[in-house]
Amino acid sequence: MHAARYELLKTDEKTKARRGRLTTPHGAIETPVFMPVGTAATVKAMKPEDVAKAGAEIILSNTYHLYLRPGADVVEKAGGLHTFMNWDGAILTDSGGFQVFSLGDLRKISEEGVSFRSHIDGSSHMMTPETCVDIQNALGADIIMAFDECTPYPADRDYVKNSLERTTRWLERCKAHHKDVERQSLFGIMQGGVYADLRIQSAKEIVEMDLPGYAIGGLSVGEPKPLMYEILDSCVDYLPPDKPRYLMGVGSPDCLFEGVERGIDMFDCVLPTRVARNGMAITSQGNLNIKNAKFEYDYTALDPECDCYTCKNYSRAYLRHLFKADEILSAMLLTTHNITFLLNIMSNIRKAIAGNRFQSYKKEFFEKYEVKQNADTCTEGSAGL
Amino acid sequence: MHAARYELLKTDEKTKARRGRLTTPHGAIETPVFMPVGTAATVKAMKPEDVAKAGAEIILSNTYHLYLRPGADVVEKAGGLHTFMNWDGAILTDSGGFQVFSLGDLRKISEEGVSFRSHIDGSSHMMTPETCVDIQNALGADIIMAFDECTPYPADRDYVKNSLERTTRWLERCKAHHKDVERQSLFGIMQGGVYADLRIQSAKEIVEMDLPGYAIGGLSVGEPKPLMYEILDSCVDYLPPDKPRYLMGVGSPDCLFEGVERGIDMFDCVLPTRVARNGMAITSQGNLNIKNAKFEYDYTALDPECDCYTCKNYSRAYLRHLFKADEILSAMLLTTHNITFLLNIMSNIRKAIAGNRFQSYKKEFFEKYEVKQNADTCTEGSAGL
Repeated sequence: MHAARYELLKTDEKTKARRGRLTTPHGAIETPVFMPVGTAATVKAMKPEDVAKAGAEIILSNTYHLYLRPGADVVEKAGGLHTFMNWDGAILTDSGGFQVFSLGDLRKISEEGVSFRSHIDGSSHMMTPETCVDIQNALGADIIMAFDECTPYPADRDYVKNSLERTTRWLERCKAHHKDVERQSLFGIMQGGVYADLRIQSAKEIVEMDLPGYAIGGLSVGEPKPLMYEILDSCVDYLPPDKPRYLMGVGSPDCLFEGVERGIDMFDCVLPTRVARNGMAITSQGNLNIKNAKFEYDYTALDPECDCYTCKNYSRAYLRHLFKADEILSAMLLTTHNITFLLNIMSNIRKAIAGNRFQSYKKEFFEKYEVKQNADTCTEGSAGL
Repeated sequence: MHAARYELLKTDEKTKARRGRLTTPHGAIETPVFMPVGTAATVKAMKPEDVAKAGAEIILSNTYHLYLRPGADVVEKAGGLHTFMNWDGAILTDSGGFQVFSLGDLRKISEEGVSFRSHIDGSSHMMTPETCVDIQNALGADIIMAFDECTPYPADRDYVKNSLERTTRWLERCKAHHKDVERQSLFGIMQGGVYADLRIQSAKEIVEMDLPGYAIGGLSVGEPKPLMYEILDSCVDYLPPDKPRYLMGVGSPDCLFEGVERGIDMFDCVLPTRVARNGMAITSQGNLNIKNAKFEYDYTALDPECDCYTCKNYSRAYLRHLFKADEILSAMLLTTHNITFLLNIMSNIRKAIAGNRFQSYKKEFFEKYEVKQNADTCTEGSAGL
């Protein structure tokens, strides 16, 4: 019995959108779900119970970051990540592959794994499928990710093909090395860049390993959004319907809708937390830059339609003041809003699928929400360095 | 009828320690009280309801800072400081005198007031007793402070004498200019440096104006602690027993006990919030530097005797990790602990006075609490720049 079990509750009548439930040792997760990112064992600028209050049932944390600091042993001796960070809900740890490959010149790939230098202190390390599983076993998340190479965009077809085949071999090694499947579920990661046939090849190879879940990696790394949607269209059906599908590193409202429509169940992204710290609020009217002078005397809520803690209690004028005065409360309040806003979208999407209203809800949402003009490429990414 | 009314409930049998209650338009404040500092309309790194949960009934905010940013009119149009910052409890605004005089070469004093340049953008401003009251009227705090000159330590006796006499004249102008005494209570500020006779002169002059409360300013500005205690001993009795006495800018645990013992009712200090952001926790065992390597695998609470949110839910190992990873949650959790810790001390002090146990509680506290060796001068200060 795998730690995480997926139940498909309902498929939308007009699209591939799915309503499901993923049961983990730390509770059930209603899908489609957005997972807030807590890179270094904290969703930046939020107390964990406020993350739960915002509606989160699962968060993501980063193997690479925690391995380097504070070290997997520090977390393990605390009793694992849940205890260490005071989060009772489910946790997914990414494999560190994305971060290691983001290191560029600081890393070197071989069949064995990747040798790299720490971005913190320059120290030398080697990560292999086996050590990656060992670290994630020590961290103790409910869902752990296979060690993969996240190929960049653009990338040469031969490179992508060789890479995805090595990712498959690494997945075999991860699976062989991971023992306690009742405590932690290992998800495989599909690669293949923007080549539909390679995506299908990768999907077939990883699905053969009969894992409790499958991720789609290597998208949202700089390719145009229409191309990402096209690739999703070409490969999602090769993933089994009775397992959860996780589109890694995606989290802007438009991409969430497009992903759900194509049959995706799980998403994560640093976008809502990162832009919050830069004074950007994601609202039902589109993105709002709180620094803007026009908000100086604006005593209305950030988003008049939002019921989050921030929108119920603070004005744009106050939030602008906090940001300009470089106050920590600015990051706290904007992060709370952005996380709540995305989780509310997902909750509405789930209700819409249940009621066969997914497309009408999507239409209604985008009648008000203005997609940022320069956001037509996917560069939101996962938690980089 | 003044906005703030003080009721002396009990005087300790062996010391001058007083148990009282200060009633304001925003609730009753049990004294002796410590007021957390929210310089820019936010107690840094805490949500206001968490400040209330920590036990705060009144906070302090800064006229100088709010005048410059966001501007008193922005706060006034919001409906005042309480609404602007979402704080239902009482607020005291300092006069800005301390901050303006901290500007050094950037300010120039005359009988009329002080002309100065903003530390933010260098713009020119003039603050007089009248404008200081106007700004504080616009901010709308329950208690407002007279415009004074906070003389430095050391300072020439003639300078201090001339300065305190001008501060008295400024207080007369503040009192004459402040109209709505039922909404806001104006407190006068005693000066006089470390000269006992000048302190007494200042006390007599300001008490004659029959104000709802009196502050002792110009202490905790660098003089040795024993000298501060000596000055308090020499002048506190010249303040009327039926009015609250506020020792400005004081907040280390030892100074709180010594102040209470000498008949002080109110304190404020940036110490607990500022040191929290530098990784310092104030605990029942003394100060603890969370950066210390010895906490790497320490899974005990910051302070095993503390019942605050941080101590109930997080370990030293986790807090050390957050600080080293430069996570905002570090400041949030350490600030919550430090504020709760100081407010718990004040709560215990109030109970001890009520039970005629003040001295035994003080003794018990200092049997465990180690006063920092290099902290024998008073440099905690108010909220500087």
